[in-house]
Amino acid sequence: MASRLLRGSLRLWGGRCAPCPPRSARCSHSGGEHRLETPSAKKLTDIGIRRIFSSDHDIFRESVRKFFQEEVVPHHTEAYSNCTGPGFSLHSDIVMPYIANYGTEEQIKNFIPRMTAGKCIGAIAMTEPGAGSDLQGVRTHAKKDGSDWILNGSKVFITNGWLSDVVIVVAVTNREARSPAHGISLFLVEDGMKGFIKGRKLHKMGMKAQDTAELFFEDVRLPASALLGEENKGFYYLMQELPQERLLIAEIAVSASEFMFEETRDYVKQRKAFGKTVAHIQTVQHKLAELKTHICVTRAFVDSCIQLHEAKRLDSASASMAKYWASELQNSVAYDCVQLHGGWGYMWEYPIAKAYVDARVQPIYGGTNEIMKELIARDIVRDK
Amino acid sequence: MASRLLRGSLRLWGGRCAPCPPRSARCSHSGGEHRLETPSAKKLTDIGIRRIFSSDHDIFRESVRKFFQEEVVPHHTEAYSNCTGPGFSLHSDIVMPYIANYGTEEQIKNFIPRMTAGKCIGAIAMTEPGAGSDLQGVRTHAKKDGSDWILNGSKVFITNGWLSDVVIVVAVTNREARSPAHGISLFLVEDGMKGFIKGRKLHKMGMKAQDTAELFFEDVRLPASALLGEENKGFYYLMQELPQERLLIAEIAVSASEFMFEETRDYVKQRKAFGKTVAHIQTVQHKLAELKTHICVTRAFVDSCIQLHEAKRLDSASASMAKYWASELQNSVAYDCVQLHGGWGYMWEYPIAKAYVDARVQPIYGGTNEIMKELIARDIVRDK
Amino acid sequence: MASRLLRGSLRLWGGRCAPCPPRSARCSHSGGEHRLETPSAKKLTDIGIRRIFSSDHDIFRESVRKFFQEEVVPHHTEAYSNCTGPGFSLHSDIVMPYIANYGTEEQIKNFIPRMTAGKCIGAIAMTEPGAGSDLQGVRTHAKKDGSDWILNGSKVFITNGWLSDVVIVVAVTNREARSPAHGISLFLVEDGMKGFIKGRKLHKMGMKAQDTAELFFEDVRLPASALLGEENKGFYYLMQELPQERLLIAEIAVSASEFMFEETRDYVKQRKAFGKTVAHIQTVQHKLAELKTHICVTRAFVDSCIQLHEAKRLDSASASMAKYWASELQNSVAYDCVQLHGGWGYMWEYPIAKAYVDARVQPIYGGTNEIMKELIARDIVRDK
Amino acid sequence: MASRLLRGSLRLWGGRCAPCPPRSARCSHSGGEHRLETPSAKKLTDIGIRRIFSSDHDIFRESVRKFFQEEVVPHHTEAYSNCTGPGFSLHSDIVMPYIANYGTEEQIKNFIPRMTAGKCIGAIAMTEPGAGSDLQGVRTHAKKDGSDWILNGSKVFITNGWLSDVVIVVAVTNREARSPAHGISLFLVEDGMKGFIKGRKLHKMGMKAQDTAELFFEDVRLPASALLGEENKGFYYLMQELPQERLLIAEIAVSASEFMFEETRDYVKQRKAFGKTVAHIQTVQHKLAELKTHICVTRAFVDSCIQLHEAKRLDSASASMAKYWASELQNSVAYDCVQLHGGWGYMWEYPIAKAYVDARVQPIYGGTNEIMKELIARDIVRDK
Repeated sequence: MASRLLRGSLRLWGGRCAPCPPRSARCSHSGGEHRLETPSAKKLTDIGIRRIFSSDHDIFRESVRKFFQEEVVPHHTEAYSNCTGPGFSLHSDIVMPYIANYGTEEQIKNFIPRMTAGKCIGAIAMTEPGAGSDLQGVRTHAKKDGSDWILNGSKVFITNGWLSDVVIVVAVTNREARSPAHGISLFLVEDGMKGFIKGRKLHKMGMKAQDTAELFFEDVRLPASALLGEENKGFYYLMQELPQERLLIAEIAVSASEFMFEETRDYVKQRKAFGKTVAHIQTVQHKLAELKTHICVTRAFVDSCIQLHEAKRLDSASASMAKYWASELQNSVAYDCVQLHGGWGYMWEYPIAKAYVDARVQPIYGGTNEIMKELIARDIVRDK
Repeated sequence: MASRLLRGSLRLWGGRCAPCPPRSARCSHSGGEHRLETPSAKKLTDIGIRRIFSSDHDIFRESVRKFFQEEVVPHHTEAYSNCTGPGFSLHSDIVMPYIANYGTEEQIKNFIPRMTAGKCIGAIAMTEPGAGSDLQGVRTHAKKDGSDWILNGSKVFITNGWLSDVVIVVAVTNREARSPAHGISLFLVEDGMKGFIKGRKLHKMGMKAQDTAELFFEDVRLPASALLGEENKGFYYLMQELPQERLLIAEIAVSASEFMFEETRDYVKQRKAFGKTVAHIQTVQHKLAELKTHICVTRAFVDSCIQLHEAKRLDSASASMAKYWASELQNSVAYDCVQLHGGWGYMWEYPIAKAYVDARVQPIYGGTNEIMKELIARDIVRDK
Repeated sequence: MASRLLRGSLRLWGGRCAPCPPRSARCSHSGGEHRLETPSAKKLTDIGIRRIFSSDHDIFRESVRKFFQEEVVPHHTEAYSNCTGPGFSLHSDIVMPYIANYGTEEQIKNFIPRMTAGKCIGAIAMTEPGAGSDLQGVRTHAKKDGSDWILNGSKVFITNGWLSDVVIVVAVTNREARSPAHGISLFLVEDGMKGFIKGRKLHKMGMKAQDTAELFFEDVRLPASALLGEENKGFYYLMQELPQERLLIAEIAVSASEFMFEETRDYVKQRKAFGKTVAHIQTVQHKLAELKTHICVTRAFVDSCIQLHEAKRLDSASASMAKYWASELQNSVAYDCVQLHGGWGYMWEYPIAKAYVDARVQPIYGGTNEIMKELIARDIVRDK
Repeated sequence: MASRLLRGSLRLWGGRCAPCPPRSARCSHSGGEHRLETPSAKKLTDIGIRRIFSSDHDIFRESVRKFFQEEVVPHHTEAYSNCTGPGFSLHSDIVMPYIANYGTEEQIKNFIPRMTAGKCIGAIAMTEPGAGSDLQGVRTHAKKDGSDWILNGSKVFITNGWLSDVVIVVAVTNREARSPAHGISLFLVEDGMKGFIKGRKLHKMGMKAQDTAELFFEDVRLPASALLGEENKGFYYLMQELPQERLLIAEIAVSASEFMFEETRDYVKQRKAFGKTVAHIQTVQHKLAELKTHICVTRAFVDSCIQLHEAKRLDSASASMAKYWASELQNSVAYDCVQLHGGWGYMWEYPIAKAYVDARVQPIYGGTNEIMKELIARDIVRDK
């Protein structure tokens, strides 16, 4: 039931990068000058602020919030316990763009409308048990058999994997390529195909509303039409799309930090200790000042990356910076906000507890933060 | 079943501070000179190391580990899901000492043997919904009625609260005392007494093998024999016992850190990435060096506090330092060790994930770390 | 000689906030879209990057750099040893705006051209021996005597104090005001006035090219024309101007960080150790990635504050965030960059050593970072 | 003059590791139980505390302090400006042990009494312009010529280098050794030898009372008696002695931190701001609590290393931990203590300013902290 409601919601905003404005609003600098930036806003989570947004965005953000408030929050506990909620942003902002950008007309017609309607849930399968963030170590492979492909291998840590109707699978198609990067292709593998086995749902520390699964491919026969984009171009497509995925993680991280800050501000302003509100304690005030500063500084950077992304000018190093920095912010803010909640911060019924455990995966997935530093460093030490 | 096994285990070591040696082994410095300290040991968790221990301790530690390995670990998952495991160290190292130190002969005879046998589980109830770590804000009160007392009030965040057979309750007995500290007494309240209502078990982020509950007292009639120690001396008893509680948290924190370090060392030495083990990566090596150093430095301090405690010379400020510093160490180590596990660090089936969420409560309970800093600072700025 | 050259330089850019564009270039967003932001630039210090700048700014920045390179750098050592260099930015970006914004036509005619020409050096005297960053504690006072004022008191930590030709002095003019804030005025006190005594130059840890002095006022008789702005409006003027001063410190801090990063990148790319360049060491690479990220994130925030300032919309809390965050960045970057230089980082002949000690004052002056947090927190906990 | 006084002082304590107790006091645990540890002491710098010391040590420490107070402090400014003060601890605790441990009877008779008397200043020359902390990169070499040796090469960053009467020079004596470690020897090179040229004194950021120089060796003819220890055993001797050098740096770091803490405590207890002493501000109190805890925790570790060293059981990894951890403590404490001094913290006349710049070299020399982490990590990842 909750699941159906959640799926329905995708109709509203599926297939569109949340921070991306409607086309008509693209001239984001025109009226933006008179909007407040986060440091000066009444609440960090206010709608109507941030130069990168226009009034069209405000309306869009308002409707998304209203939908979540009315349709998702009431089912949240249920969703958490049943783990049925899909990874919204993965579906909309990571999987769909691959199909939209590299798919054939037929593939687009086949998947995009159903995915937009929330009737077909997407996933992407890169990571393997032995390879982690290392694409060079992919073992899953697809062998030509006539015009078909025979897919073998296994994947792990796949968000939406158990719930997915279609999975973009990264597989080696040319083992003799001069580097693994030149021998990788992408395939659209659908639920129910013979030999496509969904393993167990992994029992995660947090992020309980979305499933993370193992996937196995045992002689899965794929028609030629399952190939996404050109043969052996998979690595190139991944390199094109990964900055958006990393920016998305960064955006979620700052937004989560803003949410946690406001939750905590509310809490300390009403909570009493030693005969006054916790907000009156000087060390609490300085901690809040540090948190807000850290968040606002990061917000400025991520917003500037969003602008670059919109202009198709976001490079890999900048996206890596945003992902690494913002996901560490999120964990640092979460830690301090739990502390400011005292004992209640450790209790599942307070949103801050969920936010704390949810945060922990962000420095790990989408390429670990250590991988991000490798990518940033590559540019720094390169001889130009 | 698991519960009975766990209770049985208390017979072995109940009522004895784990790091405290058997009497015969008290002269801990005699042979200690030739033992390795943690920095030089093969594993931080090795038995047979640390100057503060003798061979008698080694035998004791060995038997405790064997017991846990054989009797607790196999039931661990079950214990986690059913939340039946008691807070061992709270029972043995915090609650029992109150009764042993301040109880009448009759109280000692009544409770200690059953508690040592694990047949009577203890808890202590200080914190109240509106008071947090602030003892000055205690509202629960006991009124004389003949030789009896009538107890009213409520408590929250009580470890073992739901499972407890006996609870030491902190209550105001003299509202006209010149300060709240002079009007507080301790009472032994037993499960089943009329008006003693156990509220819901709180849904914690971690520490799932022990319950944390709300307790309500509605006109609970207590006999004179329920008073623990002297009337209005409760604050003094708490001040005497709190350093041991804080040292205990510190000890658990360092031990947990040592465990997490060794788990992680094992993991990175077998896990492959980019064609070699993770342990071969230089940034991983430096991170491990930083973690080990941080742990060993803290271990030296906590061990020196244990020695002071054994000599009955551990003051409040030193215990507060140990509690605050070690519990932050534990969280910092947990964070980094999860990261070094990559995606698996986020999965419940790996001990590091449990260790991560368990760690988060340590800077909060037993007096928040902010309260610790208040206590440390008091000494620093006092005019002597 | 060096001094004359340095003074001469002020003609070029005196009286203009460095980051402020020439009027014709104000529409900074028009063409800015196609400029690189710092994360993607070849060097963080490159001219031609950053959206907030236009090609007019580039030409201006180019000429300032050329001037410094040709006229200041060759005399730098001399300047350092003789402590003759004035605090450029204090003169241009802090002192002159007070006169330009609040001065009478006569005062503007009298001072601004000479100050722009570098012939009249300015200073501003707020801090007092007993008051630190606390304007409420100002003791220096001016008493009406006919139309004149009699000024008494002393000031400390006055940048350019010893070299100054004119000093803006903060003094109490109404001791009965309902708060000290309502009884403060500003005065223009000139070098050579009877009773205006310049004390010793303080021996600073760094910032050796600018003097920091004590100033004493003993019955200094000031004409009515020495009053800057209206009587008792001083506090208001300070509140108006302090955000620019704080933004200036933030801007210097990020620029210094960018400079240090590039110095260090150059160093590690040529320095050999263990048979390869230091830049090849993985831990060095990750450190550089962290530094660059920290700098670029801060740059985005400070640039966004500069835009707000240009639009006259920079509030006190945002400026305080920029000052506190960027000055801590600067010190953190300085610390790490010294380390990456090894032994040479400790030697005065390397720019990084000077940068390290220069950096240390930034979190202190212009209002300590602790005061910044007070200002930021005030907004956070206020009931709106 | 100051120089002569300082040299004279060496008679008192030259040639003895400061923390090492007189022989009669070796049984350091006997009475130590009743002494306070640093966390409980009135001042961290108190004499009479710390278990590792006995009353004999107290007397020794008292006399050293008295000597410094009477004979060094009054000449301190002079010493700073003239750079005449020798590196005391380097002379006594690093150079002399080499001669005492590996010297021939003749060498010991020749040098030790004069060095103890402060009439012969010692230095040790390891680092080379191109080699940093990397002993494998030593280029200075000594070639046999009959029974003599001909020494060529250059050294840099040599403490006491300019002032030294005798320098222990690390040189390659066998270029065909299977590893550089097997071809290194030590030589005693005396001031005045033909071809031994002292280069410029390097202009350091701090540590101004001791010189740091470049040394050049141009066909210096050394008699056979100049060889210290056996030929090609130099690397082994260095490995034996380096832990003491690193422990010494750690000890200086903790002691300096204790001194800075007490200076700062005194300052904030008398300094007024906003109508009360700075010590009354809660954020200041928490900062002091954090600093004291950090110091006391480190003190416990370094004291335990001193005990191990006394028992000749301090291994390389433990010494490396102490050096790295304590030198970072020192810099962190210095940074915060400068901040707590406000503007005065930046002024050379306050001890905290000198302490700040002096601290910065500690993570660099004696093997950079990055090298320390390499050494610590080696043990961690080794397969045992």
